[in-house]
Amino acid sequence: MQFDTVIHGGTLVTSSDVAKGDIGIRDGRIVALAESLSGGDQRIDAGGRLVMPGGIEAHAHIAQESSSGVMGADDYLSGSVSAAFGGNSSFIPFAAQHRGQSVDEVIATYDARAASSVIDYSYHLIITDPSAEVLQDQLPRAFARGITSFKVFMTYDMMNIGDGGMLDILSVAREHGAITMVHAENNDMVKWMNGRLAEAGLTAPKYHAISRPELAEEEAINRAVSLAKLVDAPLFIVHVSTAGGAAIVQREILAGTRLFAETCPQYLAFTRDDLDRPGMEGAKFVCSPPLRDAETAEALWRHIKSGTFTSVSSDHAPYRYDETGKFIKGADVPYPQISNGMPGIAARLPYLFSEGVVKGRISLQEFVGLSSANAAGTFGMTGKGSLAPGMDADIAIWDPEATRVMGLQDQHDNMDYTPFEGMELTGVPETVMNRGALITHKGALVAKEGQGQFVARAPMTLSGHGHLAKERDPAQNFGAQI
Amino acid sequence: MQFDTVIHGGTLVTSSDVAKGDIGIRDGRIVALAESLSGGDQRIDAGGRLVMPGGIEAHAHIAQESSSGVMGADDYLSGSVSAAFGGNSSFIPFAAQHRGQSVDEVIATYDARAASSVIDYSYHLIITDPSAEVLQDQLPRAFARGITSFKVFMTYDMMNIGDGGMLDILSVAREHGAITMVHAENNDMVKWMNGRLAEAGLTAPKYHAISRPELAEEEAINRAVSLAKLVDAPLFIVHVSTAGGAAIVQREILAGTRLFAETCPQYLAFTRDDLDRPGMEGAKFVCSPPLRDAETAEALWRHIKSGTFTSVSSDHAPYRYDETGKFIKGADVPYPQISNGMPGIAARLPYLFSEGVVKGRISLQEFVGLSSANAAGTFGMTGKGSLAPGMDADIAIWDPEATRVMGLQDQHDNMDYTPFEGMELTGVPETVMNRGALITHKGALVAKEGQGQFVARAPMTLSGHGHLAKERDPAQNFGAQI
Amino acid sequence: MQFDTVIHGGTLVTSSDVAKGDIGIRDGRIVALAESLSGGDQRIDAGGRLVMPGGIEAHAHIAQESSSGVMGADDYLSGSVSAAFGGNSSFIPFAAQHRGQSVDEVIATYDARAASSVIDYSYHLIITDPSAEVLQDQLPRAFARGITSFKVFMTYDMMNIGDGGMLDILSVAREHGAITMVHAENNDMVKWMNGRLAEAGLTAPKYHAISRPELAEEEAINRAVSLAKLVDAPLFIVHVSTAGGAAIVQREILAGTRLFAETCPQYLAFTRDDLDRPGMEGAKFVCSPPLRDAETAEALWRHIKSGTFTSVSSDHAPYRYDETGKFIKGADVPYPQISNGMPGIAARLPYLFSEGVVKGRISLQEFVGLSSANAAGTFGMTGKGSLAPGMDADIAIWDPEATRVMGLQDQHDNMDYTPFEGMELTGVPETVMNRGALITHKGALVAKEGQGQFVARAPMTLSGHGHLAKERDPAQNFGAQI
Amino acid sequence: MQFDTVIHGGTLVTSSDVAKGDIGIRDGRIVALAESLSGGDQRIDAGGRLVMPGGIEAHAHIAQESSSGVMGADDYLSGSVSAAFGGNSSFIPFAAQHRGQSVDEVIATYDARAASSVIDYSYHLIITDPSAEVLQDQLPRAFARGITSFKVFMTYDMMNIGDGGMLDILSVAREHGAITMVHAENNDMVKWMNGRLAEAGLTAPKYHAISRPELAEEEAINRAVSLAKLVDAPLFIVHVSTAGGAAIVQREILAGTRLFAETCPQYLAFTRDDLDRPGMEGAKFVCSPPLRDAETAEALWRHIKSGTFTSVSSDHAPYRYDETGKFIKGADVPYPQISNGMPGIAARLPYLFSEGVVKGRISLQEFVGLSSANAAGTFGMTGKGSLAPGMDADIAIWDPEATRVMGLQDQHDNMDYTPFEGMELTGVPETVMNRGALITHKGALVAKEGQGQFVARAPMTLSGHGHLAKERDPAQNFGAQI
Repeated sequence: MQFDTVIHGGTLVTSSDVAKGDIGIRDGRIVALAESLSGGDQRIDAGGRLVMPGGIEAHAHIAQESSSGVMGADDYLSGSVSAAFGGNSSFIPFAAQHRGQSVDEVIATYDARAASSVIDYSYHLIITDPSAEVLQDQLPRAFARGITSFKVFMTYDMMNIGDGGMLDILSVAREHGAITMVHAENNDMVKWMNGRLAEAGLTAPKYHAISRPELAEEEAINRAVSLAKLVDAPLFIVHVSTAGGAAIVQREILAGTRLFAETCPQYLAFTRDDLDRPGMEGAKFVCSPPLRDAETAEALWRHIKSGTFTSVSSDHAPYRYDETGKFIKGADVPYPQISNGMPGIAARLPYLFSEGVVKGRISLQEFVGLSSANAAGTFGMTGKGSLAPGMDADIAIWDPEATRVMGLQDQHDNMDYTPFEGMELTGVPETVMNRGALITHKGALVAKEGQGQFVARAPMTLSGHGHLAKERDPAQNFGAQI
Repeated sequence: MQFDTVIHGGTLVTSSDVAKGDIGIRDGRIVALAESLSGGDQRIDAGGRLVMPGGIEAHAHIAQESSSGVMGADDYLSGSVSAAFGGNSSFIPFAAQHRGQSVDEVIATYDARAASSVIDYSYHLIITDPSAEVLQDQLPRAFARGITSFKVFMTYDMMNIGDGGMLDILSVAREHGAITMVHAENNDMVKWMNGRLAEAGLTAPKYHAISRPELAEEEAINRAVSLAKLVDAPLFIVHVSTAGGAAIVQREILAGTRLFAETCPQYLAFTRDDLDRPGMEGAKFVCSPPLRDAETAEALWRHIKSGTFTSVSSDHAPYRYDETGKFIKGADVPYPQISNGMPGIAARLPYLFSEGVVKGRISLQEFVGLSSANAAGTFGMTGKGSLAPGMDADIAIWDPEATRVMGLQDQHDNMDYTPFEGMELTGVPETVMNRGALITHKGALVAKEGQGQFVARAPMTLSGHGHLAKERDPAQNFGAQI
Repeated sequence: MQFDTVIHGGTLVTSSDVAKGDIGIRDGRIVALAESLSGGDQRIDAGGRLVMPGGIEAHAHIAQESSSGVMGADDYLSGSVSAAFGGNSSFIPFAAQHRGQSVDEVIATYDARAASSVIDYSYHLIITDPSAEVLQDQLPRAFARGITSFKVFMTYDMMNIGDGGMLDILSVAREHGAITMVHAENNDMVKWMNGRLAEAGLTAPKYHAISRPELAEEEAINRAVSLAKLVDAPLFIVHVSTAGGAAIVQREILAGTRLFAETCPQYLAFTRDDLDRPGMEGAKFVCSPPLRDAETAEALWRHIKSGTFTSVSSDHAPYRYDETGKFIKGADVPYPQISNGMPGIAARLPYLFSEGVVKGRISLQEFVGLSSANAAGTFGMTGKGSLAPGMDADIAIWDPEATRVMGLQDQHDNMDYTPFEGMELTGVPETVMNRGALITHKGALVAKEGQGQFVARAPMTLSGHGHLAKERDPAQNFGAQI
Repeated sequence: MQFDTVIHGGTLVTSSDVAKGDIGIRDGRIVALAESLSGGDQRIDAGGRLVMPGGIEAHAHIAQESSSGVMGADDYLSGSVSAAFGGNSSFIPFAAQHRGQSVDEVIATYDARAASSVIDYSYHLIITDPSAEVLQDQLPRAFARGITSFKVFMTYDMMNIGDGGMLDILSVAREHGAITMVHAENNDMVKWMNGRLAEAGLTAPKYHAISRPELAEEEAINRAVSLAKLVDAPLFIVHVSTAGGAAIVQREILAGTRLFAETCPQYLAFTRDDLDRPGMEGAKFVCSPPLRDAETAEALWRHIKSGTFTSVSSDHAPYRYDETGKFIKGADVPYPQISNGMPGIAARLPYLFSEGVVKGRISLQEFVGLSSANAAGTFGMTGKGSLAPGMDADIAIWDPEATRVMGLQDQHDNMDYTPFEGMELTGVPETVMNRGALITHKGALVAKEGQGQFVARAPMTLSGHGHLAKERDPAQNFGAQI
């Protein structure tokens, strides 16, 4: 057989198997897995290494303005480079509609921004203005182009589309086979807490966590699930940060609801105590939902293990610790004016590997599921997420024993800090390949700018997502009545 | 001892005991219970009868306009007479604020309307406009007058005060020791369903049940409880109609949340099939939340038995089956224009006794709890709800074996129909006494118009309501932070 | 009215009510409750006092040999006196069958022993040998005499009757309306642990707790409930000591199983750390099931509050801290040879009042339920447990504000220690009356030896015990098949 | 590359992936998977076919006497041939100890019996006599030989080893990394029911189901899990037949217990009504635990989907419908004398494929997990259960669209009936290969007798079995105390 590239001598890992073997690649795809392959224009030695499907980062804010107009520090070039250094061979950032804007315009804008990406990409479409045109014409057009996931917000006055808006979006998503993603926090609870805290003059960063209580997330998750069940549409809960929220997700999955969820490394690695670091350092840890506590982190790990979460995502939101990011409204502002979000696209998988696999919380196969395979399945990246003949040659080669102390220099993003600073982690993604092209290799960037491609994604099918078709009370199922 | 009245020879029933004995009454209060009492200016023979605390009807719409401006058929005279014929010696209808109206004005209006009542009364105050004045001045003033329960709506565009409004009310209620009552249905879900049904031309009465799915109630109950937990205030869920909603209430009570709930006879006795009676007859059964199914009714009975519901109330809403009530917008209107609600103030206790006690679902003591004692406790009617020295002589004397076929003539209200028409029930409240005055006796009205009095109710105390003081995560308990 | 005794000026408390008033007593029964009663050959001033139904101690070992033949220190005289000083006006100790012994002989033996009691009594019959004669003839005869509760053991080689024996007993109990009580610990687990601990030479008192793990109780409770469900018979779980066991009881009660349970003050007041007191002091705290931990105690309190436990009983087992009791096999024996059990018949109610009512965990009415009314209902003492015309004049008068430091002198039993030594408790039962006769008064014993009477108890009825008749899968209900 | 065999043109399925491709085999192992492979001494066309890991049958009674001494009809030759026609390339029947017999002798006996197998095999070792020699010497010796699973019974007087025996076995298993399997039914419940049914003269086959109620299984599962938790050893519940039992398994898995379970096709396909077929036909459906009902079957399917069951096994127990099998005690015997068990080794996977995959209840990948991959993982067959370089070439080639009406001729066993007679199934395993050798091909047997080999299995590791290491209460963990 002829190969462009052979990766030889490694341990191949998929979400089900661990095996010794070589991989042969041609024309950007995996064409052979074998005990031993000769040939290959290029031969990559993976001796002592793990050869895994490249990570798929399913939650990242790249070249996106916040709702208050702050543009994050990473564009598609820096964001994709950082992702690749973090073991990812593709990602799905957001394309965000501003109110009044057409979806077509949104996509055109992001297509231009994404052209520089060094890895494959798609977008989750954020909808903030579900007008009749959006619902009837623009979303179906986006869907036809392969953008098969829509995100909505239950919080933030400028983003939140209300329960009625969610029902409209879910209804369109169901019709086309798209999946709806939701940021679930009760907006009124947060505003009420903000009001009380402001009255009391409590505006230091640590009050950010107080202002967004666990009840706000738990309530909103329950509500979002209820709305999705009303229209019988699949739903994905992003960045679950609470044990109570995870328990709702688990309960519903076991009951057959087509529900999916992720958590993020920051909810495992940090706590609200980090918001109380000296001076304004806590601002680095301001994200929403906010950081919780160590007991919650342990509960979230248990839910990772028991299958409640299909993915662990970064929610990379690159606001620098300066006046271009965190402090665009000033250096010493009340917490509600600190930009929300933390960077982490390069740290997600090293953290998950070190704390998960190395510490025995998850198996290697589960790591591949959480980092890549499940995202491919949930979001319709049908050619990615595994090592098998015919799949895209999206591959990450890890040294499972290398140890490093994380620092900013490992992130390769445009940020001026990393929350993971100083953490000792075992396991380093040395080489990442996207469609057979080396992106990083032995720790160096070797990609060509713009070599990544847009991935048209497949619709969600009932049978393909691991849940029973739900049997519903016909009296509740409007569709069954008419 | 001197007695104005002696009730002799009956079987005395309280929420804990059943005993043979006589009751001696003086100056409107019970002054003695004994095996045998001589004397008494008036002696009432209760041989073969049950002598129980008079019912307390805690959910009734009397002399109240609906949100669309329809005045119910019963004023305080007819409403109280009907209540007394149904075994009640006091009731707590609603005093409803219109948007823009001051609470003081509301109370003044209802004080005038209530003057004709033949039994004791108080009001639950419906708040639809929680302005700063209402929250800071008017509610505390109402509370000081002994109006210690506030009701809010999560549905109906004209009533619904939003999650933020609920937090404000709950917060005031907590501060003063009031209890907040809530009609829990997700407004957006209902509106969305209404839209779809209207598009499809499905507007017969039976679609009323489809338009308000079980999920709408379950979601809203969960949300209401979450809001109450955020401010650590007690909450009362009115007219729970779903097994899922009851399960949430049970779960939270067992977890120590100070939560109370009621269901109503209509959710036990009727189903959504009744909405599909010939012609527009289904309109008689239009109420919100809507009727469900037989399986739900059985689940609600189990929750009555297991203590999930502290009361069974009537939600008496007297809209006649004519153009003054159900059809104020026309004789053959789409379901959203049919006035919502069913009469039942005279049928509540006979139904509960016959289907509950006689059929062995509940004990006599539980009947007293559900009909009277628990409402007295929850709503602060400290002098009512039991038979003990010093209590108000609010007494109902029942013939437990008398059987009748329910009809309009048994209701003594201003209605032109009863949904309970034709139902054979065992157990008849023959005599009702309020503060020692006979209201009905041997089936005849003997009360003086206006003999009922306003009851200033006591605040809820943490220790007095049957739940553990909740231990809360301090990070969620804003009060603990400042 | 003529009264033998009037208790005047107190606050009357039942399981449902708190009211000011007097009680009139004649011929051993309550004949009147009134705001004020004149007359009475004897007048007892209860000003500033609580007047409550006398406690019913439903779990005590009096004049009973242990399975290894150790006779406890208290006979019916000392035991009943101690009970009365602890606020009890009746008790139900055990009458224990030895293997091979006839039930008639057992009853005759205990009748002779009980003749000295100063308060009313009945027996729970312990069955260790369910032979055909016992099942078919002797138990029905005992039942006919008013002994309507049978106790069985799932642990101890000499007591344990196996699952088959339990099915036989439950089946007889169901037929007659008796209730079966069970000591639920898995015998094989305990023996296996004993073996391992002995091999390791770990025999200090503290290993007693290790030898009887929580799993042993939880498993056995689940099994006992399963056996009872198979024959559809009511069941009472004695001395529940684990959160897991209580959770099973709660789950089953909510599912409609006719299940009842108690816990004991020792599981609330002490922990396994007490077993590690210096020297052999831990022997004082050796009881089975063993003491657990503080977190369990809090969970048990929550279950007391939420109704999982109908009673709190003492499990009084008076083995002195000497060679007649704890150390009958020697002064420094391995834990398996220390006699099992703790005294507490005089401390049960003072502890429950002080830690429960005074500390706000339970209401006064709940105290009456847990101490007296519920036991009367569960065990068929139909004339006791409340204050109402016609009830036995079994009354305890408490000073709710008196405070004392508990010591041996307060117990009035034949013991040489009390585990409650040194505990500061608020609330003292000053006066106890049984059938109108003063037993203790103002802290002094005034009873005549042998004034107590045997109480013939009523059968359990389906409707009288607070649970729904269970709907069963006919395929599991053997009775329905034949 | 050189291949002995190439399977080309098929669709490769593993527990995680579906991909088009060829498989290259050399020396009995898979050496390459590729889009296309040339060469191969033998080329097998798999166009339009699914190429999957061969099934692993983890529950079959082959050449085994029942506890009452009845030898099943299938020896290792017929049994392995039938298995292969059913899509299996290896199996793990039982090697059963008789009381008094040494484990070494048991293994020697079964080694002789198994020599004729056409597919690879191992044994689960049934222990009925856990003497000190067995526990200390013989089990460790069996384990060292690669027999890493022990089975125990909680029912049948001749098999049941009691809770203490189970603790001993679990303890040895834990020490060595073996997994304990358990038949969980409460023996006393069954005996008690048998007694009652016999007394009533109810002995037709249909009473077999009544005699072994669902409670008997649910109780025993809970108890078995409790025992395993006490010693912190992994446990596998065989043939779960009840929704309640499955719910316990699910609850414990979610709590982190190292628990595994299977169900069987008969509990999905048949109900207790089949026991009531005319004459003695019901005897064909006598198995233990017994068949249940349609609602249970649906619940079991949901548990298959949600991961409660890791495998679906046949429990093949080949008792012919004649005096050598079902009726060894006579033609018209009471149900307790009918031999227990049903054949199904050839029907297991065709049924699971047709009802599971074809009907949309499970995905193809889940089918591979349930039929092969999970059993390989649970029972330590580390070289089997997937398609990857280096794995044994144990492969089944299925025609997913072929349809047949199941009959005895499809079973290829020594039986005279199949319970699946007449069932229309879609999907046929046409070809099965074991270590690269064709066993069946295009529906014909091509194996050499005795070509199968004994598989030495790997121990269970904590990290390798999909559950979190359980955090235990140290007070319950004896090991932590000494």
